[in-house]
Amino acid sequence: MESSATDRKTWQRWLPGLPFLGWARDYDRATLGSDLLAAVIVTLMLIPQSLAYAMLAGLPPETGLYASIAPLVLYALFGTSRTLAVGPVAVVSLMTAAAIGQFAESGSPHYWEAAIVLAFISGLMLLAMGVLRLGFLANFLSYPVISGFISASGILIACSQLKVILGIDARGQNVLEMLPSIVAALPQVSGLTLMMGMLTIAFLVWIRKGMQPLLVAWGLSARLSDAVARAGPVLAIVVTTVLTWLGDWAGQGVRIVGSIPAGLPPLVMPSFDGALWQQLWMPALLISVVGFVESVSVGQTLAARRRQRIEPDQELVALGASNVAAAFSGGFPVTGGFARSVVNFDAGARTPAAGVLTAAGIALVSLMLTPALYYLPHATLAATIVVAVLSLVDFNILKHTWRYSKADFSAVAATLLATLLVGVEAGLMAGVGLSLVLYLWRTSRPHIAEVGLMPGTEHFRNVLRHPVLTDTSLVSLRVDESLYFANARALEDRINQAVACNTELKHVVLQCSAINSIDASALESLEAINVRLQSAGIGFHFSEVKGPVMDRLQRTDFLQHLNGQVFLSHFQAMQALAPALLCAQA
Amino acid sequence: MESSATDRKTWQRWLPGLPFLGWARDYDRATLGSDLLAAVIVTLMLIPQSLAYAMLAGLPPETGLYASIAPLVLYALFGTSRTLAVGPVAVVSLMTAAAIGQFAESGSPHYWEAAIVLAFISGLMLLAMGVLRLGFLANFLSYPVISGFISASGILIACSQLKVILGIDARGQNVLEMLPSIVAALPQVSGLTLMMGMLTIAFLVWIRKGMQPLLVAWGLSARLSDAVARAGPVLAIVVTTVLTWLGDWAGQGVRIVGSIPAGLPPLVMPSFDGALWQQLWMPALLISVVGFVESVSVGQTLAARRRQRIEPDQELVALGASNVAAAFSGGFPVTGGFARSVVNFDAGARTPAAGVLTAAGIALVSLMLTPALYYLPHATLAATIVVAVLSLVDFNILKHTWRYSKADFSAVAATLLATLLVGVEAGLMAGVGLSLVLYLWRTSRPHIAEVGLMPGTEHFRNVLRHPVLTDTSLVSLRVDESLYFANARALEDRINQAVACNTELKHVVLQCSAINSIDASALESLEAINVRLQSAGIGFHFSEVKGPVMDRLQRTDFLQHLNGQVFLSHFQAMQALAPALLCAQA
Repeated sequence: MESSATDRKTWQRWLPGLPFLGWARDYDRATLGSDLLAAVIVTLMLIPQSLAYAMLAGLPPETGLYASIAPLVLYALFGTSRTLAVGPVAVVSLMTAAAIGQFAESGSPHYWEAAIVLAFISGLMLLAMGVLRLGFLANFLSYPVISGFISASGILIACSQLKVILGIDARGQNVLEMLPSIVAALPQVSGLTLMMGMLTIAFLVWIRKGMQPLLVAWGLSARLSDAVARAGPVLAIVVTTVLTWLGDWAGQGVRIVGSIPAGLPPLVMPSFDGALWQQLWMPALLISVVGFVESVSVGQTLAARRRQRIEPDQELVALGASNVAAAFSGGFPVTGGFARSVVNFDAGARTPAAGVLTAAGIALVSLMLTPALYYLPHATLAATIVVAVLSLVDFNILKHTWRYSKADFSAVAATLLATLLVGVEAGLMAGVGLSLVLYLWRTSRPHIAEVGLMPGTEHFRNVLRHPVLTDTSLVSLRVDESLYFANARALEDRINQAVACNTELKHVVLQCSAINSIDASALESLEAINVRLQSAGIGFHFSEVKGPVMDRLQRTDFLQHLNGQVFLSHFQAMQALAPALLCAQA
Repeated sequence: MESSATDRKTWQRWLPGLPFLGWARDYDRATLGSDLLAAVIVTLMLIPQSLAYAMLAGLPPETGLYASIAPLVLYALFGTSRTLAVGPVAVVSLMTAAAIGQFAESGSPHYWEAAIVLAFISGLMLLAMGVLRLGFLANFLSYPVISGFISASGILIACSQLKVILGIDARGQNVLEMLPSIVAALPQVSGLTLMMGMLTIAFLVWIRKGMQPLLVAWGLSARLSDAVARAGPVLAIVVTTVLTWLGDWAGQGVRIVGSIPAGLPPLVMPSFDGALWQQLWMPALLISVVGFVESVSVGQTLAARRRQRIEPDQELVALGASNVAAAFSGGFPVTGGFARSVVNFDAGARTPAAGVLTAAGIALVSLMLTPALYYLPHATLAATIVVAVLSLVDFNILKHTWRYSKADFSAVAATLLATLLVGVEAGLMAGVGLSLVLYLWRTSRPHIAEVGLMPGTEHFRNVLRHPVLTDTSLVSLRVDESLYFANARALEDRINQAVACNTELKHVVLQCSAINSIDASALESLEAINVRLQSAGIGFHFSEVKGPVMDRLQRTDFLQHLNGQVFLSHFQAMQALAPALLCAQA
């Protein structure tokens, strides 16, 4: 049956993998126990998070629950991380609100429809990127860009929740729009809401900074006490819900969640409205890439702790399937979340079955517990969001990159400012654009050294640094970079300069020891240089061309037209072209 | 007075240069003679071209004359090329029509106003790029993209002139729109116009392919006969204008240029309408970059023939000033043209004064000769355009890049198809986008070799190619590329894989001899790798780190956190970490 095994491998290479086949075979009762414990803790953590991130995305609370059921099951089937916990996350929810808020009113059916389409397009894009092995596209988001973006998003999210804690209406895509809108609405502040929101924030901060060390002091393991501390929001929800119910605060200006339809997620068909798709494809692409980068970095960090590995391209397929599932079950864009994945890992999850069990837990909640959430105040949810996102804000990156590299600093600063002052999409575009421009700028000026012979050797070194021998009829240039479109013209400039400076020049020799590749633009430049040198009566020679580069050049007619020779070593080039130089040495 | 000379140098570095100070000092009668002859020939060539490209841009014919006066004088003041001839060119005129045709009706005052604003914005952008030394931005247009774009533009221009030769109305931004529109209008074809257009094309082709060799055979020099052949369009204009006048063909369906207001260019103030600027900044940027790339490559080719040099950043200033001048004198975007610059060079132009003299020639024409152009048929101008642009179309680039590199081929094909099927802007964007994606894809998979000790030496080589010694407790990796955001994750993957494959692993050593730089993204990846390896109990070491890279790392706390050491040579790393390997060797 060996041939059938080979066959399976062949088609498996072209189809999305099914990694669960790997772990499901050895699944036993002990693993189930670990997974179940982790699932219970993650479910407790996900209830407030899913409601809160639905609110942040501008959607009804039940959609948060829906987005935490089907996607988790799909990720368990297709994902390669053993412990990644998928669901609504803060930054992606903010991006969802920014994308849809531009043309639909939060709370309207059209808004929800757009969120479903956004999840669907994003899912299809992730699937396509996975199947076509396009995971490298995530590289466009460099570390400075993603850091600046996440810090700025944290601030934007905290600002957007300020209005909920103040009990007022305000809106805006950026700080410049949000703050004046909040200030204008200040006279309507609900004192009770504000008090409850502030107390909840204080409690949540204490539970993490104060209680967790206390639990450790009482003898709980650091991991377990951390997991308990992370369940703090559940306690806050219970207490504030009960207080609001008993005190009838809903009649006194405290906004509550209200009735959530009980039941499992609906089966929804995403809209195929062309105009809507055209409005949403760009935000969907940005959400896909940001979600993927976040999820993969969490997954890699956790996998490495247990010496496991994740496959980025397969992760794209899994996140794609999760988002498509979110769309068909009335949810909104999801990805792997950092905090909940760490909790899942620390609580002892062993396999993605923990995700399936978490999904079952959330399904139970949305079937049975939604009436209990009737009196849950919006301000409590806003408080959990604020505490969660403030840990995202980290301005140290500005200090570090300032010290390390001004180019990287500019990318952080541009992303941060554009996100805060214009919006999330503008911020990402500015960051990616600037990173590319700066990279191009750096590589467009490759180090090109004029080299000369070290006396008594066959070695050639930079004329500016070493006492070397040169010949006025010949210039030797060493390019310390592969030649491609960004730097092709720099070489032309450098050679034009050398020619213009020296009227006795007879030969130009390029020492190619550091050139790993030459693309078509650079080849065209070399051809232009060759024609120009030829019409000026100057020879154009190469030495030490690497094998693969030479193979490629031989597929063209460049070498036939070359007004010069290709030498194996630079020393041989000198022997042939400037014998006087070697005599001087001898 | 040495200090004043230094002062001048200091401010000259920050102000645009005035290269004419260089050549004007030594200007004598002999140079004037050469320049005057060249100017007469170029003027003859520029009359039909400037009228034809104004028509192609959708503008009244006199604007072509206006665009060939002031810009030439400004280029003569600021340009560094001695022989470049600036003015309206085919591709930029097509881009002008595409940019403005989207929202204004050709022939309307708003259309002309938009063309003036387009030239003005493009001029300001070029000036800014020149003063800020941003010429490297032109590198975004790789050779495959510019080649595909120019071929596709040639086809689009020929298609757009087809309607003029057929004497019908048709429109469209791409081939898919143009061809059906032409087919639908076929019943209105003017037989007389078509005949004249076809005969003019045949005549112009013959004059270049047939007459030029004939003149050479009669003893004229190749250069002079080429220059005469290039003046063929003037002959065509004279003949068809006279025939149309004598035959009263204008009454029989032949469209004529009609009355052109005589006089020098008007002084125009560009509009500062914000909405118009917003619509035009992107096309203006693309026009600026395409115009600059075309102009610089012509300039460099001609300068090299006489061992002169051009300064790309100063060229930006000169082209910017030319376009601003075009805007203020009622013209449209201009740049250095290939054909007319070659004619200028071959006719013996020695200095940019030839450009000033050409401007004077065109000014004379627009003062005195415009009545003579009354009966000039549009079809004649269309024929001169078709013959001129067909030389731009060159599909060999597809064959060459297919053989040389599939990535470059894809960039050519994408640019070509998107330009033909969607339009000029989409074509450029598709090409630039795909080039960047492909470059990122290539560099995102750097060559990372596992190396081992060559027996009996201190050298380390690829384990896959050489019979080397290795130790199971240690893996040595050599990265053959600088580390930056596009490939940082690839290194993480490779190390994760090495760790997951080998449960006995104790040490990972990176041999850094080929790493020229490490950006902040790569540093973050190294930190992540360090944390992950540390939590898995594996040491992370470096060897042969280059000086500048080490300097930069020492500005961070990375080396303090490093769970391992930095060794001067890879051999020293082995001595410290895997002494057993060296014993085996001994």
